[in-house]
Amino acid sequence: MEKLSAYSPGDQPTDAGVTKLNTNENPYPPPRAVLEAIRAVEAESLRRYPPPRSAPVRQAAARVHGLTQDQVIITNGGDELLRLAVTVFCEPSGSAAAPGDRPGRAAPGGGGALGAPGGLGLTEPTYSLYPVLAAIAGTAVTRVPLREDFSLPADFGDRVLESGCRLAFVVNPHAPSGRVESPARLRTLAQQLSRRAVLLVDEAYVDFAQSDAIELVRGDVGLDNVLLLRSLSKGYSLAGLRIGYGLGAPGLIEALDKARDSYNVDILAQKAAIAALEHRGEASATWDRVLDERERVSEALCSRGFSVLPSQANFILVSVPEKPGSGRGVPAAARLFEALQAQGIYVRYFDQDRLRDKLRITIGTPRENDVLLAAMEKV
Amino acid sequence: MEKLSAYSPGDQPTDAGVTKLNTNENPYPPPRAVLEAIRAVEAESLRRYPPPRSAPVRQAAARVHGLTQDQVIITNGGDELLRLAVTVFCEPSGSAAAPGDRPGRAAPGGGGALGAPGGLGLTEPTYSLYPVLAAIAGTAVTRVPLREDFSLPADFGDRVLESGCRLAFVVNPHAPSGRVESPARLRTLAQQLSRRAVLLVDEAYVDFAQSDAIELVRGDVGLDNVLLLRSLSKGYSLAGLRIGYGLGAPGLIEALDKARDSYNVDILAQKAAIAALEHRGEASATWDRVLDERERVSEALCSRGFSVLPSQANFILVSVPEKPGSGRGVPAAARLFEALQAQGIYVRYFDQDRLRDKLRITIGTPRENDVLLAAMEKV
Repeated sequence: MEKLSAYSPGDQPTDAGVTKLNTNENPYPPPRAVLEAIRAVEAESLRRYPPPRSAPVRQAAARVHGLTQDQVIITNGGDELLRLAVTVFCEPSGSAAAPGDRPGRAAPGGGGALGAPGGLGLTEPTYSLYPVLAAIAGTAVTRVPLREDFSLPADFGDRVLESGCRLAFVVNPHAPSGRVESPARLRTLAQQLSRRAVLLVDEAYVDFAQSDAIELVRGDVGLDNVLLLRSLSKGYSLAGLRIGYGLGAPGLIEALDKARDSYNVDILAQKAAIAALEHRGEASATWDRVLDERERVSEALCSRGFSVLPSQANFILVSVPEKPGSGRGVPAAARLFEALQAQGIYVRYFDQDRLRDKLRITIGTPRENDVLLAAMEKV
Repeated sequence: MEKLSAYSPGDQPTDAGVTKLNTNENPYPPPRAVLEAIRAVEAESLRRYPPPRSAPVRQAAARVHGLTQDQVIITNGGDELLRLAVTVFCEPSGSAAAPGDRPGRAAPGGGGALGAPGGLGLTEPTYSLYPVLAAIAGTAVTRVPLREDFSLPADFGDRVLESGCRLAFVVNPHAPSGRVESPARLRTLAQQLSRRAVLLVDEAYVDFAQSDAIELVRGDVGLDNVLLLRSLSKGYSLAGLRIGYGLGAPGLIEALDKARDSYNVDILAQKAAIAALEHRGEASATWDRVLDERERVSEALCSRGFSVLPSQANFILVSVPEKPGSGRGVPAAARLFEALQAQGIYVRYFDQDRLRDKLRITIGTPRENDVLLAAMEKV
């Protein structure tokens, strides 16, 4: 594994003076019932193994979404669901390899080569964890560039199928742009992939969007090759607890369940998840506040000469204009990133194509956002 | 994945009247400081991502064992460490396969075939999760039968190497017998495997044993191909919280760390783990009580006509004598298992070679053990 690059999760500074707008946490606390559930824990439930398949949490999630319990799998953060999907639906590329040189490990850097059946289809750009998971599994990656406006190209499905991919990840709202594809567009894509590949729609940020894709897995019109990823990290302010879940047809859920670590979600995370889902209204009040601030911050930055893509997530992707003659080749966005960090303001910079002129900024509290705006005005 | 059998983790009955001696939990509560740490949690630490590499827990574990922090990886239960080791050190067997027919999936049932390089070496019997993990990863398994007394055969290393295994799992104390191999024997094995395979010693039950293998990874005489697995589930009464860790040379730890889910251990588990490790003395007082009961229960069962293997774990493996002419082919142990369960007493029965005449019984509180003994006398 010497050649493998680990996922870079973004800094987690612990200094209290920091304005932390770099990893898309919800700036408001979780529902009060979550803390109450945690504080009520007894020694006996720590001592014993937790419900291995998180049945009580699956029931709570099924109720929220109008699904049945066998359409839900609870995971140790959304990340575990992504890993399980790669493990179950993809194949290692090439033949058995010499130690330290497993085929496919180099693939994430390459693009869309034929002859890599069983691989993973991705948009470019996308959530940077995806290719890391493929590399760990030795699975080839096919990357299809998004259009200029970060929307899905018309031929995304064609290219995924031509490459022999068995799985495609589409993050929606898109990271890092915040753009949303409609349920109708995703349905068309899933139907095109049907019987040949699974479409996983990563809805980690959907609580901040105007629409979701739940109709793709619900009732008579549900599709049997669609998985939705949900997370309690952002919408429910529980990033510290690592709770995600997958929604889909019972056959897909069962296949993922067999590859899951037994007892993958601990008892406190299970209790917290139930309390959070049962107090969804309290969480959704925070989503409205984040949306209001998203509009305010976007407008303020536009009026200061930045351009901001319309976002339906709890972050925005901000283009930083270059001033001619300055910076000796270092992009203005990279310089701004450094200057903000020097002032204790953490945002995210991605040193990769199409993103080098941009910063991804999490929407914080009004006070945090004011600190950011004041600093960006000054710099 | 249709053909894959999921791991069967043992029943988790929730009925309060049950005497639960089937999944090896410690019968006593965790150190009080653990509950205090959990109840002191603030909303802010739930809202934010946890320390991604669990650095404070690694420090605490390193202190306990006299190691450096870069010799420790913290995992979501010991199970995650096992999965990571298979992912990182093993290879999928055979060449790229047709969908639904990944090679190697059938291997766990087979034994020790040559021509499966990069596989996993196991003793037979062993912890039943191991072959399930190999099957999920598509890795071939080589099984080497233990001797009659459940000790490691002299040729275990030879057979692991002949089969081209890159990794071997030895659970020590052994599950389900409770037998312990000496550190010297394990050192000899590790030295034999050196440069060709990694030896993972699963010490999930070591807190109840007279010796451990820590010297294999410590200081100048530490070996660079040995990983030790530790768990807080049993010794520290924290099965509900899913905390395990690996100890080994920094190079091995770094390789595992790259394959880990980012943020694999939640903030409450991290806080609980630190509190537990810092109050190890309180936990070790429970180990002494379990050992006393282990002797008492073993002697009582022997005096009732059962035979009990000497165990250094918090469970015992009990042979149930057959009475001639009874049971119509169903082993006496299986009948006793059913009869106990009908009375609300859960123990573990393994329907596999060498174990069909035995029951694995977790050591409980004196009261629980009395319930068991009374029932076994009656049946």
